[in-house]
Amino acid sequence: MRILFLGDIVGNPGRRAAKLFLPELKKEFLPDFVIGNAENAAGGYGLTEKITEELLDLGFDLLTSGNHIWKREFLPYLSKSEKVLRPANYPEEAPGRGHALIEKNGLKLGVINLEGRVFMRPLLCPFRTAERLSKELQKETSCILVDFHAEATSEKIALGWWLDGRVSALLGTHTHVQTADERILPEGTAYISDVGMCGLADGVIGMRREQALEMYLTQVPRKLEVPKSGRVKLEAVFLEIEPQTGRALRIERIRREEC
Amino acid sequence: MRILFLGDIVGNPGRRAAKLFLPELKKEFLPDFVIGNAENAAGGYGLTEKITEELLDLGFDLLTSGNHIWKREFLPYLSKSEKVLRPANYPEEAPGRGHALIEKNGLKLGVINLEGRVFMRPLLCPFRTAERLSKELQKETSCILVDFHAEATSEKIALGWWLDGRVSALLGTHTHVQTADERILPEGTAYISDVGMCGLADGVIGMRREQALEMYLTQVPRKLEVPKSGRVKLEAVFLEIEPQTGRALRIERIRREEC
Amino acid sequence: MRILFLGDIVGNPGRRAAKLFLPELKKEFLPDFVIGNAENAAGGYGLTEKITEELLDLGFDLLTSGNHIWKREFLPYLSKSEKVLRPANYPEEAPGRGHALIEKNGLKLGVINLEGRVFMRPLLCPFRTAERLSKELQKETSCILVDFHAEATSEKIALGWWLDGRVSALLGTHTHVQTADERILPEGTAYISDVGMCGLADGVIGMRREQALEMYLTQVPRKLEVPKSGRVKLEAVFLEIEPQTGRALRIERIRREEC
Amino acid sequence: MRILFLGDIVGNPGRRAAKLFLPELKKEFLPDFVIGNAENAAGGYGLTEKITEELLDLGFDLLTSGNHIWKREFLPYLSKSEKVLRPANYPEEAPGRGHALIEKNGLKLGVINLEGRVFMRPLLCPFRTAERLSKELQKETSCILVDFHAEATSEKIALGWWLDGRVSALLGTHTHVQTADERILPEGTAYISDVGMCGLADGVIGMRREQALEMYLTQVPRKLEVPKSGRVKLEAVFLEIEPQTGRALRIERIRREEC
Ligand SMILES: [Fe+2]
Ligand SMILES: [Fe+2]
Ligand SMILES: [Fe+2]
Ligand SMILES: [Fe+2]
Ligand SMILES: [Fe+2]
Ligand SMILES: [Fe+2]
Ligand SMILES: [Fe+2]
Ligand SMILES: [Fe+2]
Repeated sequence: MRILFLGDIVGNPGRRAAKLFLPELKKEFLPDFVIGNAENAAGGYGLTEKITEELLDLGFDLLTSGNHIWKREFLPYLSKSEKVLRPANYPEEAPGRGHALIEKNGLKLGVINLEGRVFMRPLLCPFRTAERLSKELQKETSCILVDFHAEATSEKIALGWWLDGRVSALLGTHTHVQTADERILPEGTAYISDVGMCGLADGVIGMRREQALEMYLTQVPRKLEVPKSGRVKLEAVFLEIEPQTGRALRIERIRREEC
Repeated sequence: MRILFLGDIVGNPGRRAAKLFLPELKKEFLPDFVIGNAENAAGGYGLTEKITEELLDLGFDLLTSGNHIWKREFLPYLSKSEKVLRPANYPEEAPGRGHALIEKNGLKLGVINLEGRVFMRPLLCPFRTAERLSKELQKETSCILVDFHAEATSEKIALGWWLDGRVSALLGTHTHVQTADERILPEGTAYISDVGMCGLADGVIGMRREQALEMYLTQVPRKLEVPKSGRVKLEAVFLEIEPQTGRALRIERIRREEC
Repeated sequence: MRILFLGDIVGNPGRRAAKLFLPELKKEFLPDFVIGNAENAAGGYGLTEKITEELLDLGFDLLTSGNHIWKREFLPYLSKSEKVLRPANYPEEAPGRGHALIEKNGLKLGVINLEGRVFMRPLLCPFRTAERLSKELQKETSCILVDFHAEATSEKIALGWWLDGRVSALLGTHTHVQTADERILPEGTAYISDVGMCGLADGVIGMRREQALEMYLTQVPRKLEVPKSGRVKLEAVFLEIEPQTGRALRIERIRREEC
Repeated sequence: MRILFLGDIVGNPGRRAAKLFLPELKKEFLPDFVIGNAENAAGGYGLTEKITEELLDLGFDLLTSGNHIWKREFLPYLSKSEKVLRPANYPEEAPGRGHALIEKNGLKLGVINLEGRVFMRPLLCPFRTAERLSKELQKETSCILVDFHAEATSEKIALGWWLDGRVSALLGTHTHVQTADERILPEGTAYISDVGMCGLADGVIGMRREQALEMYLTQVPRKLEVPKSGRVKLEAVFLEIEPQTGRALRIERIRREEC
């Protein structure tokens, strides 16, 4: 099973990067499934129904998300959508769902979305939630991918070891910086601390850099904007998984930049 | 010198409480100066020009604020206003000013607004800023009041000891809960960890309680609203200061509640 | 039913304050039960077996605790003790227990210890844990007391409203500053945001003030010490509860200071 | 000018990794200067005089550090040492120094150590401190290296843009995970969000993974230990700088793992 997973897609430039590079990446990697984290796809904060559909039209089979998904006006759509996940370790009463089973070409892939708790919200335990949901999905398929949307490297790595041998891949998101630690853990789980982001190549995690600097220098809080124009990049990983066993055979970092 | 200081004024109910109780409090305490923290006066978040003027019309001589003052549209007014302070320990480039000298009835009062750093923003050191500004104001008057807008009791109490004998009063704000630790420190500084709030009596720090509960139960972030109706309360302290020496003679907690 | 509850007992001065003032408080209030938060009773951090026994000898029927209870060497004792609670909303695998039923004079009191999550650890939901345990204890008694060891006023007040009518009292601890907001909520639950502390009267939340200042001024982390000598205070609340219904009839703040 | 910079050296395995791989790296890269972040070199937390000397004997010209450097017993040595930096943006009263000028082979390199403030301590502004110290060092040399010990990618990237053209390199440390975003910014500053770590290859940021998991699962705080044995890795970057202009010519990620 071949999977392409894109890191946090940030605003218009993030969608532009997907549009620009996905066709060639599909040719090169021939993915069975294309997944991306879309928590910042709408103007840098959250998602909308329109942008969800724009992304699905580009060929995404499923969108994951994270702490930024909770825009009020998106909640009705999130509640009913089968194509957008929110982290599974929010309390049950939160709208939306945190895991999915997707099927294509006779292949089944379970996907679990989780959010970290270090420097973030006090959600349900991501370790126990991952354990519970991976067991549930294993009834359907050996191939399971986890998007762990988290800040602290320590929590990400710990969840990697916790899940080694129980899922096919644990891919970190949220920091918007791709890490160089991709590897296949001893029991067959592909791991990377952060896949990175798709969006503005020369901003600050996808935002206007002069606004980020103003914020750091004055400490006056402000909404950072995503500029419409500017050179873009795409960061992703490619995974190859043995369908019968769910073992990862390959994890490869991808970066494409506009000239 | 007689001073009435009102804790965080939260939204419409907070202004209503001020309107309702200020007349009788003025009669009872005969304050030379009336000051209040207005960081939440506009709908629970920040301040506007219109509401500033509404409060000044009620008889406030000066308004202090805190972490919530930074609404984009208020910044031009904040930059030029002499009646609204923002915490003094933001970097110099931040709009607005953090201390003031107010005069009335031949009396001069220096006021310093500061923000804490524990669980809050990494501002300039409130201890050193207080030291520098109190020295500056002491050239004009012995009477100095500090509004320390902070979360952690430890930081508030430490600043109290640091300033004991250098200012007339250190009044905490921000938690919206009045503390019972008012006292005059050995060198003559009146101290209270938190003055409390003016606003909804039966909410959650001034906000709708069902929304606060929803947020705690689901962890889905949301803007909490301040209801227009509902029983209100006012929390404040009354200070009496010896004008020549700046020593506090009296600090008294005040609470008034609507029936 | 008459209950005396002491706020965080901090180090040697905290135990000294209990020793000094408990006899007269017992005479005055004739409590059926005496409870105290002992998370800082041993040198300001945690508890030991010896100090637990010293406190029980003073007449405490039960000790609650909080974030500071987890000293490695105390865990074996905590695991088996029936007299020391740790917050109930730690994962099940954590040593110790979070609720208890105590009996005396033919009276039964359920006690639940909880820890907040705002600015603290990502524990289990204190709202749901309180709901579950209060239902469990209600099978035995209508009289239930909750010690909510938490930082943020908003979380404490929200839990107060959540539990109103379900428990007899929700008493906040952890900030070491007594709040002035004691009240009986409409459905009969006694509430106070923080009971305060027992310990050094002129320190910084019970610790040496020169060390606290050094830490704030240099930002160099250090263990704050509790001095052996120095004037002490005791902060507590007295509760009166109707045994049949569990409704609170009275909540009264107590402070005693050494001259 | 050729520089080898090693990411956080964690405990015994970190020193072992340096001992194991430095000889071959020196042969391959022929560095003029070897620098490393040693904040975790002593048992995972802080540094000692003995271990400082052990590292200097291995060929380090200078050691940088971060939030973990403040072990009480190390402060006297830190105060006088010219070979160990602590972040420069601590208040002046903190022991130790935050920048240095090192010379060898007729080459001069300025080094600045800074600590981030997002999710960390409220230190002095790293942006302004970097500006001030880089100007000071520029009087002596065009070649300046900054170790920015910080958690948040946003703050690291923003400081990179802020310093582009003013220093030769901004190297992030602290997360213990090497990032894949090394580049030379448009004005000639080499940048990487995190250099990574030297130490245990199969732990959790250098610590025992079963202890990290226990901590995440129980939320009971504990000191994580660094095991003496286990496969080690070294993560570092190699920099080439044009001595006259201080412009970076090359930044290259390095990882070496024990078999
Ligand atoms: Fe994101
Ligand atoms: Fe995120
Ligand atoms: Fe406020
Ligand atoms: Fe505030
Ligand atoms: Fe405590
Ligand atoms: Fe505590
Ligand atoms: Fe480190
Ligand atoms: Fe660090």
